[in-house]
Amino acid sequence: MTALTRRRFLEAVGLAGGAGAMFHTMGALGLVPEADATPFVPPREGDLAAGRRGRRVLVLGAGIAGLATAYELGKAGYDCVVLEAGERAGGRVWTVRGGDRARDLDGHVQTANFAEGRYFNAGAARIAQSMITLDYCRELGIAIEPFAGQNANAHLYDEKVSDRPTTMRAVKADVFGHLSELLAKATDRGALDGELTGDDKERLLGFLEHFGDIGGEDDGFAYRGGSRRGYSVLPGAGTEEGKVLGPPEALSRVFSRGLDRVFDFELDFEYAMMMFQVVGGTDRIPSALASAVGARRIRYGCEVRSIRNREDGVEVDYREPGGAVRVERGDYCVAALPPHVLARLDHNLGPAVTAALATPVANPVGKLGLEYGRRWWEQDLRLYGGITRTDLDIHQIWFPSSGLHSDGGVVVGYYNIDSLTEPYDRMAPDDRLRRALDQGARIYGDVYRRDVRSSFSVAWSRVPHIGGGWVTWPSEDSPEYRLLTRPAGRVHFAGDWLSHWISWQDGAFLSARKAVTEIHRRVAAG
Amino acid sequence: MTALTRRRFLEAVGLAGGAGAMFHTMGALGLVPEADATPFVPPREGDLAAGRRGRRVLVLGAGIAGLATAYELGKAGYDCVVLEAGERAGGRVWTVRGGDRARDLDGHVQTANFAEGRYFNAGAARIAQSMITLDYCRELGIAIEPFAGQNANAHLYDEKVSDRPTTMRAVKADVFGHLSELLAKATDRGALDGELTGDDKERLLGFLEHFGDIGGEDDGFAYRGGSRRGYSVLPGAGTEEGKVLGPPEALSRVFSRGLDRVFDFELDFEYAMMMFQVVGGTDRIPSALASAVGARRIRYGCEVRSIRNREDGVEVDYREPGGAVRVERGDYCVAALPPHVLARLDHNLGPAVTAALATPVANPVGKLGLEYGRRWWEQDLRLYGGITRTDLDIHQIWFPSSGLHSDGGVVVGYYNIDSLTEPYDRMAPDDRLRRALDQGARIYGDVYRRDVRSSFSVAWSRVPHIGGGWVTWPSEDSPEYRLLTRPAGRVHFAGDWLSHWISWQDGAFLSARKAVTEIHRRVAAG
Repeated sequence: MTALTRRRFLEAVGLAGGAGAMFHTMGALGLVPEADATPFVPPREGDLAAGRRGRRVLVLGAGIAGLATAYELGKAGYDCVVLEAGERAGGRVWTVRGGDRARDLDGHVQTANFAEGRYFNAGAARIAQSMITLDYCRELGIAIEPFAGQNANAHLYDEKVSDRPTTMRAVKADVFGHLSELLAKATDRGALDGELTGDDKERLLGFLEHFGDIGGEDDGFAYRGGSRRGYSVLPGAGTEEGKVLGPPEALSRVFSRGLDRVFDFELDFEYAMMMFQVVGGTDRIPSALASAVGARRIRYGCEVRSIRNREDGVEVDYREPGGAVRVERGDYCVAALPPHVLARLDHNLGPAVTAALATPVANPVGKLGLEYGRRWWEQDLRLYGGITRTDLDIHQIWFPSSGLHSDGGVVVGYYNIDSLTEPYDRMAPDDRLRRALDQGARIYGDVYRRDVRSSFSVAWSRVPHIGGGWVTWPSEDSPEYRLLTRPAGRVHFAGDWLSHWISWQDGAFLSARKAVTEIHRRVAAG
Repeated sequence: MTALTRRRFLEAVGLAGGAGAMFHTMGALGLVPEADATPFVPPREGDLAAGRRGRRVLVLGAGIAGLATAYELGKAGYDCVVLEAGERAGGRVWTVRGGDRARDLDGHVQTANFAEGRYFNAGAARIAQSMITLDYCRELGIAIEPFAGQNANAHLYDEKVSDRPTTMRAVKADVFGHLSELLAKATDRGALDGELTGDDKERLLGFLEHFGDIGGEDDGFAYRGGSRRGYSVLPGAGTEEGKVLGPPEALSRVFSRGLDRVFDFELDFEYAMMMFQVVGGTDRIPSALASAVGARRIRYGCEVRSIRNREDGVEVDYREPGGAVRVERGDYCVAALPPHVLARLDHNLGPAVTAALATPVANPVGKLGLEYGRRWWEQDLRLYGGITRTDLDIHQIWFPSSGLHSDGGVVVGYYNIDSLTEPYDRMAPDDRLRRALDQGARIYGDVYRRDVRSSFSVAWSRVPHIGGGWVTWPSEDSPEYRLLTRPAGRVHFAGDWLSHWISWQDGAFLSARKAVTEIHRRVAAG
């Protein structure tokens, strides 16, 4: 074991091992791998002199940020203590299974009755390819599988436009058809001659004909629908040629729809397919992290009351499960609690920190797990996974991406935020269920109520020690945000709320890596 | 057991059990389930009088159509004999695993060296939601999982346009950006005032701003790229806001690309996500069908030589594995071989049948399985499944949808047809591999050659007893096609080539159901 000089350490951080060379080669090919701004080098046993290995770090909160902090620091032999107010690891990574019981801030108690093997990801549920969450899954041996974020057979239900749902497939075909017809006409009329060369025009018209499935010039570039909308009668064997679903929706009506609901999950960087989920439930991530950190280092039921920087360390008061108040001391602290929870603690970090912690606003977020005894969406509608979108306040219905063809499964009956979820926040679980079933039945009919076996709803604003789905900063890059990205003495802050991936596990992991790197650098520098 | 009257039988076919009522309700909601033109009622034990149960049906070919025929007829107690020239069930549903050995028509012998658990679907590989193939998976207990047909992180490589690959994500963003800018400008200039009301214009412009990620009116509706293209530096924790990948490609260049290759797998009815695959390899479908039919009913290595209608039955000559020619007799025959194979048989079905069988053209189709020892596409490029498209003759590269995060996996190194595959058809397997690796390396660099552990290529035109990937009829709904959709005496034809889903298992299943229904009706009617 050798002592690490500051210079060697910084070199290592800068080079990021073999990845740098690889990225260089790929960059030359134009493959553009998405580089991390600061490639992360996990702390290693050999980085520190023997005397510095035992540095004690108090980690507040056993959510992803806290667990990842303890996990990474543990690789270099830091002595971490994780204090968690709740009874489980994961925070907003919460997978509800049969037998699980929870009481919310309003005193509502729910027990999940899901059958063996069925679960409901009440919080984090999906992972984008770019996210280091996948790297942690690989490192920790957690199996992943595709998440059906986009499905042509899922539905769009805009009650403001029509009392009938339509498939995503049909809406997309109509949008692209009408767009193509309009643009082809405008191009043909010369309205874009300033923008397009003759070659451009020819190529564009050729593209639009295919992209919009529209007629040619002789046909006035007319969009008249086609098989991309789907079929009312499927083509079959022999002479059964099927019947295309038609006619297309009129232009005025299509563009009255909430089309962002069709395209944001297809185009936005975080949502574009492929997406992934954890086999068996997202909580396998915090479970694996907690196992790697070690049970003896995580204290559940311990609610932090105060944080104080002292001359030679950090002091944290917390209430034990029995009610007694205890003091824990460490060399550094990583405060990985939500900002609105931290804002309520007693501390000596100064008034600017107090003000900054009170700045982000916690967003209410709600989610309902509906267990069905029969997969009617697969059997009756040939809908295998995917997300139905609506202007009703249930906002989204998620059909399960796994357990395909099994007897039943858990559907997400609503996933909504802010004003959409507020009515549900105020309700008892039974009333939430009733409201969600009423709305779902407006889309899917009686089948939506039939075969419901059980349910479990979460109003994140009402979850003890968490109090919100995620936070919103009043402005990006505000002085308050910047202040908290820097340590307050020996106290470092971490969480998705201090990243550019708020509400994603990725943000929590990235933020933990930042705190870990900074602490390790301080310790190494001595 | 009761005898089935013709009327009762037809009623049953027409009603299709409980599904009719369900479809009615859903139709009223606008859910438009895709009805089958002729709802299929599987033959049942009770349908026939005792004396008719033992009717013997000769099934030619143990591909999906032949197996499904024997499987469905078996439900009502028919005595089926399946004659298969090859050594395995499945036909073009062929999953190659380690140890598998094959000789092609040119005498090239390949043995697959894939590691345990890895496989290559040399033929059928993906299933659309609408397809009854999924219903057979459910009925037979075959597990399915999502197939990554669309992936924003997969690449488009148009060598005619650029020597650098680009992500599907970036191409789509640029296409939608430029389209939106152009259409917004034309709309704003009044070029579409004949087509659009004032309200339409307002809604359309609002939509385009989001859909294309373009500027507003003040900004000339300019498209300047954005995060949908991806990032060169990912946003991170703290103040690392990342760097959007830019600049966008110029309009002239974007529309010079082979954009159909971006959109056909997203929009076309058969390909739009979600798609599915069989866990462990597509051949689990024919394996399960063959098990259900029963080993004693399927005779491998038996090549049919002639088919003859006799007054009271059908007579088939075939060559046994030992070389002896035997005769088999039955009440009916289902000829479920490819038309170009049937066309070579001796028969007494008349010259019109001979001419009709010779009408469809067999398409050469090629596919290469490349086994890698490391999943560089996941580890280096964050590409988890999906299909890269190119104007090179490899045409497509498929990355595996399953086994995510495992050590290695099988990539499809080319999947091409007709003129694209012809050069490969003429090559020995080693030369095919070399050509495919050269082309793949132009997209992905040296990594594409490194870590290749083994490979296996199939030129379907060179596969004994099959001789093509699928067929093309010179015209849809031709008299020749129509002729073969009807039985020739006691000989019924079946196969995907007699359906509207040529090249899909679905077509083979549908066609088998048709033959089964027709034979059952004949037998029931007496």
